[in-house]
Amino acid sequence: MTGPRLSRRSALGLIGAAGAAGVAGGFTAGAARGDDAPSTTDLVVPFRGKHQAGITTAVQQHLYFASFDMTSTAGREELKSLLADWTAAAARMTRGQDVTDEGAVGGGPYKPPDDTGEALDLQANALTITFGFGPTLFEDADGRDRFGIADRRPKELVELPSFAFDLLEDRFSGGDLCIQACANDPQVAVHAIRNLSRIAFGRAQVRWTQLGYGRTSTTSKAQATPRNLFGFKDGTANIFGSDGSDLATSVWADDSDQPWLDGGTFLVARKIQMLIESWDRVRLEEQEAIIGRDKGEGAPLSGGTEFTEPKFDVFSTKAGGPAIPMDSHVRLAHPDHNGGARMLRRGYNFVEGNNDLGQLNAGLFFLAFVRSPQQFIDVQRSLAKDTLNEYIRHIGSAIFAVPGGIRAGDSVGSGLF
Amino acid sequence: MTGPRLSRRSALGLIGAAGAAGVAGGFTAGAARGDDAPSTTDLVVPFRGKHQAGITTAVQQHLYFASFDMTSTAGREELKSLLADWTAAAARMTRGQDVTDEGAVGGGPYKPPDDTGEALDLQANALTITFGFGPTLFEDADGRDRFGIADRRPKELVELPSFAFDLLEDRFSGGDLCIQACANDPQVAVHAIRNLSRIAFGRAQVRWTQLGYGRTSTTSKAQATPRNLFGFKDGTANIFGSDGSDLATSVWADDSDQPWLDGGTFLVARKIQMLIESWDRVRLEEQEAIIGRDKGEGAPLSGGTEFTEPKFDVFSTKAGGPAIPMDSHVRLAHPDHNGGARMLRRGYNFVEGNNDLGQLNAGLFFLAFVRSPQQFIDVQRSLAKDTLNEYIRHIGSAIFAVPGGIRAGDSVGSGLF
Repeated sequence: MTGPRLSRRSALGLIGAAGAAGVAGGFTAGAARGDDAPSTTDLVVPFRGKHQAGITTAVQQHLYFASFDMTSTAGREELKSLLADWTAAAARMTRGQDVTDEGAVGGGPYKPPDDTGEALDLQANALTITFGFGPTLFEDADGRDRFGIADRRPKELVELPSFAFDLLEDRFSGGDLCIQACANDPQVAVHAIRNLSRIAFGRAQVRWTQLGYGRTSTTSKAQATPRNLFGFKDGTANIFGSDGSDLATSVWADDSDQPWLDGGTFLVARKIQMLIESWDRVRLEEQEAIIGRDKGEGAPLSGGTEFTEPKFDVFSTKAGGPAIPMDSHVRLAHPDHNGGARMLRRGYNFVEGNNDLGQLNAGLFFLAFVRSPQQFIDVQRSLAKDTLNEYIRHIGSAIFAVPGGIRAGDSVGSGLF
Repeated sequence: MTGPRLSRRSALGLIGAAGAAGVAGGFTAGAARGDDAPSTTDLVVPFRGKHQAGITTAVQQHLYFASFDMTSTAGREELKSLLADWTAAAARMTRGQDVTDEGAVGGGPYKPPDDTGEALDLQANALTITFGFGPTLFEDADGRDRFGIADRRPKELVELPSFAFDLLEDRFSGGDLCIQACANDPQVAVHAIRNLSRIAFGRAQVRWTQLGYGRTSTTSKAQATPRNLFGFKDGTANIFGSDGSDLATSVWADDSDQPWLDGGTFLVARKIQMLIESWDRVRLEEQEAIIGRDKGEGAPLSGGTEFTEPKFDVFSTKAGGPAIPMDSHVRLAHPDHNGGARMLRRGYNFVEGNNDLGQLNAGLFFLAFVRSPQQFIDVQRSLAKDTLNEYIRHIGSAIFAVPGGIRAGDSVGSGLF
């Protein structure tokens, strides 16, 4: 690296002990990541460790997510080389470095720069890059095993079933591979996906991408609970990155049929359009009954404060029934009514202009990490009765197996081969 | 306001002297806004003053911009009441308050909340709300003077002419009115536009909106120069908010034919798609020749550092011609080659998924404030020879007259009536 990239280089001096250990030692406790201060620009989140970063990591402010399909001519060797190249580039970028040693301006005048350069002066900003594999990577729609890895497919990695109220569009759904980039500066996340897409040229191509402009969940007790576009706090009951036993029970897929999934998890992505203008015409009482919480504080309608556990058997004389209505979101989504299932959520708000009626194209890009996709399926089936369905539409859907952490010298997905 | 909105209320305690003066005194020097620290969450930028905020204000991290059309049934009284309602709501939101006193949860259970609530726990985040009027507000496409204000149209407020390489789409162009919301938290900017759209119901409707995820310009010497999606520093030669004489010469339209435009300006908005994948295949030397600056440092190719003035008569033996090529962007856009025209730019990057070929829908949402639209027209015509045109497409265009600052007790645009 040469002179002009001083700002990115200087970030290296700020990694500190945790980052250095993460790089050199190969293993860093996932829990240690959970409570990082989320908003510093110079924070480096270790890329290598027991688990991939970006799962229990304190949720960063911005997301750029991409789903990829392998190209029609790519075979086993192309997939292997792609994963190796992606790993090398991700390891560098998460340290705040350019994508290669030659970077944006160091490769000389006579070739396109290795790095696209728009993050040249930006530090790591807690960038995490998390990789996942979709069902079609193992067996495509025609039943072909394009990469000779059909026997490495976790038996639970199958397309999600249809749900009531699904209005899925192909252009927001599926994919052979996914990359989740989260950072406290949006340009850093966009830069990461753009450069990884560029590296994939000829081997994989972007299927769909999603910009999340603001987080709706928190995985750290140090973070305030953010609000979704319906104005309600979201993620109050989320699993925190420091909740070791909850993570073991609900997130890490250590007992799957595939050893390469040890320390890994499943990722469910749903693009949920929110019918903002309709919601905004609902009176406060009804909004709160639909959600099952009060809007200002976020407390369950059975009483208490934001972090009080909902009491589903509390009767309300005024409501003439349960204080938390039978068809409320909180009741139907609660682990008590779903066999104890909990999900580690990492959703982001999105806003993408407006439709021809002047209504906002906006909503929630729902991301959840689960030990088994069945956790999501059970909750989503339970939500068929949710009155919230009047105000939302699921328009995109994808599922990915997220391999365990990447050890020093290794590449993501090496266990597939 | 009641208890649950403590966080928004607490922001009020943090306004400090500048905010209080802006609110109470009616006038605050525009220049004083230029060098505010840009990134604090509790910063309140005075809404009222000699000029509207959001022009010379140190550029915030995030933008949400909306263009509106008046509804077919709205007349003069509806326009007047809309502008009054918008002014009242904007004054509150820029102080970090809910949109009305009753706000998101204070209006009781039996009506839809006045405020949509997603910014309940967020502070002002330097929110600025800037209003503008399009040519069609004064005379629509059929030549009708719908609001009885045709004689208040500034003579320079006409649709922009066609330029070489324009590929404009109606869905990103035009509008009777515009609102620019800038803030250091994207949810705060989105909340502002959403609530102003809601207030407009029945009187005006959204025509198009644009989310800008990261700034590409700076109007303050305290801000580092950001990079656009081609990886180059953008806005190096921008006018700073503290440059009083430059602002008087190039930005404030104090000599227009309309007194209501005193202290105001013209706003040109252009949605510029950048052909990212094509650009990324260009060798570094050619990228730098196209821009006329080096990529790492941002110095003009005639030598020096980022802030060195370009020397257009320096000869390069290597290039066999001018060091800064004749068809380079810096040369063609420079004031020396455009009758001294300078623009106060306030652009933002955008990324909106990808097209069917997997290419990014990404680029620059160009915003410039000018004393006369002719400044933009001259530069844009000069840029017809710009080799950069191979890598960009203008897909949206709009022009607005931005009235002067709003005095205490007054509403934006009161001078129209």
